[in-house]
Amino acid sequence: MRVLITGAAGFIGQKLTRDLLARPVLPDGQGREQEITELLLLDQVEPPEPPGAGSGPRTTGITGDLATAADLLRDRAKPVGTVAHLAAVVSAGAEADFDLGYRVNLDGTRGLLEACRSQPTPPRFLFASSVAVFGGALPPVVRDDTAPVPQTSYGAQKLVGEVLVNDYSRKGLIDGRTLRLPTIVVRPGKPNRAASTFASSIIREPLQGAEAVCPVPTETGMWVLSPRATVAAFRHALELPAQRLAGNRTITLPGQTVSVADMVEALRRAGGDRAVGRIRFERDPMIAAIVASWPARFAPERALELGFKADPDFDSVVAAFVEDDLPGGVR
Amino acid sequence: MRVLITGAAGFIGQKLTRDLLARPVLPDGQGREQEITELLLLDQVEPPEPPGAGSGPRTTGITGDLATAADLLRDRAKPVGTVAHLAAVVSAGAEADFDLGYRVNLDGTRGLLEACRSQPTPPRFLFASSVAVFGGALPPVVRDDTAPVPQTSYGAQKLVGEVLVNDYSRKGLIDGRTLRLPTIVVRPGKPNRAASTFASSIIREPLQGAEAVCPVPTETGMWVLSPRATVAAFRHALELPAQRLAGNRTITLPGQTVSVADMVEALRRAGGDRAVGRIRFERDPMIAAIVASWPARFAPERALELGFKADPDFDSVVAAFVEDDLPGGVR
Repeated sequence: MRVLITGAAGFIGQKLTRDLLARPVLPDGQGREQEITELLLLDQVEPPEPPGAGSGPRTTGITGDLATAADLLRDRAKPVGTVAHLAAVVSAGAEADFDLGYRVNLDGTRGLLEACRSQPTPPRFLFASSVAVFGGALPPVVRDDTAPVPQTSYGAQKLVGEVLVNDYSRKGLIDGRTLRLPTIVVRPGKPNRAASTFASSIIREPLQGAEAVCPVPTETGMWVLSPRATVAAFRHALELPAQRLAGNRTITLPGQTVSVADMVEALRRAGGDRAVGRIRFERDPMIAAIVASWPARFAPERALELGFKADPDFDSVVAAFVEDDLPGGVR
Repeated sequence: MRVLITGAAGFIGQKLTRDLLARPVLPDGQGREQEITELLLLDQVEPPEPPGAGSGPRTTGITGDLATAADLLRDRAKPVGTVAHLAAVVSAGAEADFDLGYRVNLDGTRGLLEACRSQPTPPRFLFASSVAVFGGALPPVVRDDTAPVPQTSYGAQKLVGEVLVNDYSRKGLIDGRTLRLPTIVVRPGKPNRAASTFASSIIREPLQGAEAVCPVPTETGMWVLSPRATVAAFRHALELPAQRLAGNRTITLPGQTVSVADMVEALRRAGGDRAVGRIRFERDPMIAAIVASWPARFAPERALELGFKADPDFDSVVAAFVEDDLPGGVR
């Protein structure tokens, strides 16, 4: 089976690639385990050579946009059994550039779905959505049947993608699975422009001897999932039989509700007072307001019934980061 | 103020046209009453000359599709203050022709919204959506915060339109208002291919001396609104100040829950046993199953707070039909 990953150079794309290389099998539409023969790793920048590539499935890096991805899917001679569509213009970017956000996040996703219709059999299609589909007046706990009313263009575009994945699946044109991701913490790498970036920085930087700024009050609650659990959820979603998703392909993933204070205490247990001393608490009212507007409590009953799992606690999230992303260990 | 109506040849389009001609004023973006100077009546077939045209606003019939409508909106020299976007490929049509449904209901709507960006000021934009956005496992009473999970392409396309109208409004590109319409009863004219068509036929035909078939059990519940109340809701939506819709432009309209038995008794009160005797009860299991899957109970609290009104009872629905659409009276 050939697998296409869009956004393969992103940190989740790289981790998913590594996971598929480590265990290169996925079920086909009939639930039969198929060996992955090739990973098509597409991104706008050349995806880095995955560690461990060479043995097992072939990995092919492709530099291009979602139109390039659609071209690949239209090539019936090289059938693609599974698509993991992770590429997107992120929240702040889609808000700053309305046209770019719609072109990539809506038209790009639609173009991929349309191209899937050229495939000899409907591909399994994993779509990364986000709890950013929720906004405005929300109940204290977001349920599976709570109406999403996005308050950003990114959330609107992700919601449209969810609706399309559902309808194309209902029509048998793809076999879709949409996961609404919590805030992913701890992201490896550098801070980015997302309002949530601090939540990774206040763990990642101090554990490497560097300073980080916390712009929100410590009582702020967040709904979080580790990169490791996110990749496990992607694989689980790709392995679920379609009949278990009847009528609705959208799954709000489980996560955990933590306060920033909880996160800081987990940092203390992992890196001591010295690590915590590297956090500067400097309130940024704008970021604090944005983060406070995000729902922090969910009851993701359907996902739990389907066997998706959150991290057991925030110490595990920190431990997974140290194991997976700090080869030099805690400084 | 110039007003553009898409789907102007449809029965609701015609009734809205008549209503705007009868009282040709609408508020502009600043809430100031503006005289309607011209009605642009667009449809794929030539909209009939509205009765009463000639005095008051100019009416211009335009034969074309939504691309034609978008061209009109891109003409800055003839600004359009209000758009009523009623045109759509209906439920059965969008289910039968997937590509046509997406082209008209999604791309066509998006094209109109994009064209609105050419206008000198963001037009007020009324979008006719439908309770067809709801489907699958639903609570006994659909609330304003119940998640829509469409089970038809029509419902999916309408939901995408809702999300776009919200996001374009949030960005200040239009001043949108989306109404989720109940099943509209009693439709004038001929039966169509909709599964709901019987609900109008069993009133309309017997009151004109003709037979009608009822394909569902009489205990079947439906969520209905009269054409007269629908047009009143359209005008109310166009008159509401934007600040009352903050954060969410989508409104599930009030309606009434009636059983088919209730409808038949209202027919008896209007047309006697003779009228009721013209209904043949012939169960069609397929139609019965489709209609039974539709939600029949809603708690449209937001709409009621905003001043939208349902018909007081089903007798009023029948009476409005006789007054508005049976110039010859009951036979």
